Amino acid sequence: MRKRIRLSPEEYIAGILAGNRVTLSRAITLIESNLEEDYQLAQAVIAGCMPHSGKSFRIGITGVPGAGKSTFIDAFGTSLAEEGKKVAILAIDPSSTVSGGSILGDKTRMANLAIHPNAYIRPSPASGSLGGVARKTRESMLLCEAAGFEVIIVETVGVGQSEISVRSMTDFFLLLMLPNAGDELQGIKKGIMEMADAVLINKADGVLLGKARTAKALYTNALRLFNPPESNWRVPVLMCSALEKNGIKEVWEMLESFQNFTKENHFWEKQRQAQALSWMHEHIRQRLETLFYQDEKVKIQLNELSQMVANQLISPVSAANQLLQNWKI
Amino acid sequence: MRKRIRLSPEEYIAGILAGNRVTLSRAITLIESNLEEDYQLAQAVIAGCMPHSGKSFRIGITGVPGAGKSTFIDAFGTSLAEEGKKVAILAIDPSSTVSGGSILGDKTRMANLAIHPNAYIRPSPASGSLGGVARKTRESMLLCEAAGFEVIIVETVGVGQSEISVRSMTDFFLLLMLPNAGDELQGIKKGIMEMADAVLINKADGVLLGKARTAKALYTNALRLFNPPESNWRVPVLMCSALEKNGIKEVWEMLESFQNFTKENHFWEKQRQAQALSWMHEHIRQRLETLFYQDEKVKIQLNELSQMVANQLISPVSAANQLLQNWKI
Repeated sequence: MRKRIRLSPEEYIAGILAGNRVTLSRAITLIESNLEEDYQLAQAVIAGCMPHSGKSFRIGITGVPGAGKSTFIDAFGTSLAEEGKKVAILAIDPSSTVSGGSILGDKTRMANLAIHPNAYIRPSPASGSLGGVARKTRESMLLCEAAGFEVIIVETVGVGQSEISVRSMTDFFLLLMLPNAGDELQGIKKGIMEMADAVLINKADGVLLGKARTAKALYTNALRLFNPPESNWRVPVLMCSALEKNGIKEVWEMLESFQNFTKENHFWEKQRQAQALSWMHEHIRQRLETLFYQDEKVKIQLNELSQMVANQLISPVSAANQLLQNWKI
Repeated sequence: MRKRIRLSPEEYIAGILAGNRVTLSRAITLIESNLEEDYQLAQAVIAGCMPHSGKSFRIGITGVPGAGKSTFIDAFGTSLAEEGKKVAILAIDPSSTVSGGSILGDKTRMANLAIHPNAYIRPSPASGSLGGVARKTRESMLLCEAAGFEVIIVETVGVGQSEISVRSMTDFFLLLMLPNAGDELQGIKKGIMEMADAVLINKADGVLLGKARTAKALYTNALRLFNPPESNWRVPVLMCSALEKNGIKEVWEMLESFQNFTKENHFWEKQRQAQALSWMHEHIRQRLETLFYQDEKVKIQLNELSQMVANQLISPVSAANQLLQNWKI
């Protein structure tokens, strides 16, 4: 294997702040690496970018399969890019098995956006634990912000836990739905519905327009049953057709009212603070484990004790405590 | 607050091994306590009970609300108890807010079982994180085994994550369903269906008998679409009426064939080993966090750094790393 060339932290930081996309991409690759030395380097780059981050609108998007997420993000992102906004698209998909080489996948499913000079699309990191993927996406987001991107869209597949991750790193959570409200209401989990800051019914075009209107009424009613969100924002139900590019600008207008509303009542800031704190704790949790399992003494003992646990010679708890005790010394 | 009296580890262990239920209950209370000294004492008790544990049939039961879990467990457990088997019922319910005083709740919903001398019902521990509740249930299970219980039923409410916990600590996972197959197939998550070692359609009585038969055929077909489980066990679909006490003995016969089948092909042992190992890692994870956050230096610094993170003076990651560095010394 050829050793990849690394820059110095200062070089990465300068490149990112200058908006150099090649450097940005290489820094994100660093974040996605599982090597300890890359981790240290990545952390130095992030620390340097930190003072220049935080200024974007972070938008999480989810939806059931078939809701047309890619088509919507393509239309929505392109519309923003055409207005001169710099838009970055990241994804959280723990089930993704794409390698570094399959960038084409994400770029072809958002064909218009991919070629726009104001847009930057970064495919999901190769598969790993959700926690790991979430950390990588979160850190990549900071670098994109430092590189000057003003709108960051974090996309997720509709599989429960990853929505919670995306929700925990974004200012706004948009739920994309299909016009078939009946089936949908049963298919989507109540928990995800409750996290949404807006419900957007896509494919509201052609023969489905009537169904979309019915769905809109149904969702509006369903949302009334929930407690009002902490932001006090009234969760709207919108319709659009990403295919026909209808209702796309209205989505951005709605997002802007959310921003105004929550900046005024200070929820915006409060949510960012809470997210930063829970990220700190999440990071502590992950690093504790990494530090523990990378310890040479632990590695040796773990092998031996695992055998003993498997053969019922020692309880899992005693084995764990023994490992912990020896590590602490 | 009155200081509760504690026994010595030896006294707890001797009482449990003698089958003394008062001692067993007090030891479980110790497991459920959040005090560090109780934790140490509980671990000593568990270590002493460990060599006498592991001999029961551990059965996890879940089902959608309304499937009649309590009625089924009452009928099923009583039927086993009447045959002379010693049966313990534990529950994982992270949403539970019952305190130590509300034992009546679980005892009244299983009225017959509660008064049977061969049965022991322990209500869910008071609410807490799912990880904490799962650990407590797992450890309580060991004590019940050491006290001579031969069948342990771990019950869970149907809320996603807790099923995974129950699945990870039991030999067999039983999914209780209602005769309304159409609605059910949509309501229950595919992931839970895939974890099941058997599907049991309850309330197969009276006017619902026909529907139950249709449901049985539907589930049997649905299960064919899944990959065969690692155990190579053919997942059966059974019907019963807990109310009329029909089909209850057949459930036990089915469980016995599972036990024979998986002991013969060594899956039984393999699964137990894998469960013990993942329990060890789970325990390491939890203890690492506890040790970290209980550290006096960490506590002081955490306060200060949290403020800085909230005010964006430092990145969550830098704050976490700073805390970790100082702790390691």
